[in-house]
Amino acid sequence: MCEASAYIITEHEPRLIMDCVDKVVPEGSGIRLVNIFGDQKIIRGRIHSLSLVDHKIFIEETRET
Amino acid sequence: MCEASAYIITEHEPRLIMDCVDKVVPEGSGIRLVNIFGDQKIIRGRIHSLSLVDHKIFIEETRET
Repeated sequence: MCEASAYIITEHEPRLIMDCVDKVVPEGSGIRLVNIFGDQKIIRGRIHSLSLVDHKIFIEETRET
Repeated sequence: MCEASAYIITEHEPRLIMDCVDKVVPEGSGIRLVNIFGDQKIIRGRIHSLSLVDHKIFIEETRET
C-alpha cells in the first residue's frame, strides 16, 4: 500500500498527525487529510513538501495574524 | 515503490506531466516535482489533490492575471 504519514512542522520537530493517509486536499486555509479507513482531519496549514518514496507528508502550520 | 504520476488539470482532461514522482514541493507560484531518477520539473500551478493509494497527484494550472 502506498499511503503515507502526515507530520506537522512545528517550532520544534515534526509531529505525527495521521498515519495511513490516502487523500490530501488543500481547502481554503487548511489541508484535508483522509486515511485509508475513511477518517478525516482538517489541519490549518499548507503543504510544505511530500516525499512519496519515504511515505511522508509535511504540513507547515500557518498562524492567524 | 510508492512514487506517483503527476497530472495537470487543464480545461479539458488531466494531462500526464511526470511519472515516478518522489518529491513534491510547493515553491512560490509553482510546484517542484522530482522523480526517482532525480529529474526535476517546476510547474506553474498549485496542488489540487493527491490520491496516494491511486498514485496520483493533480496540479491545477494557475494563470497570470
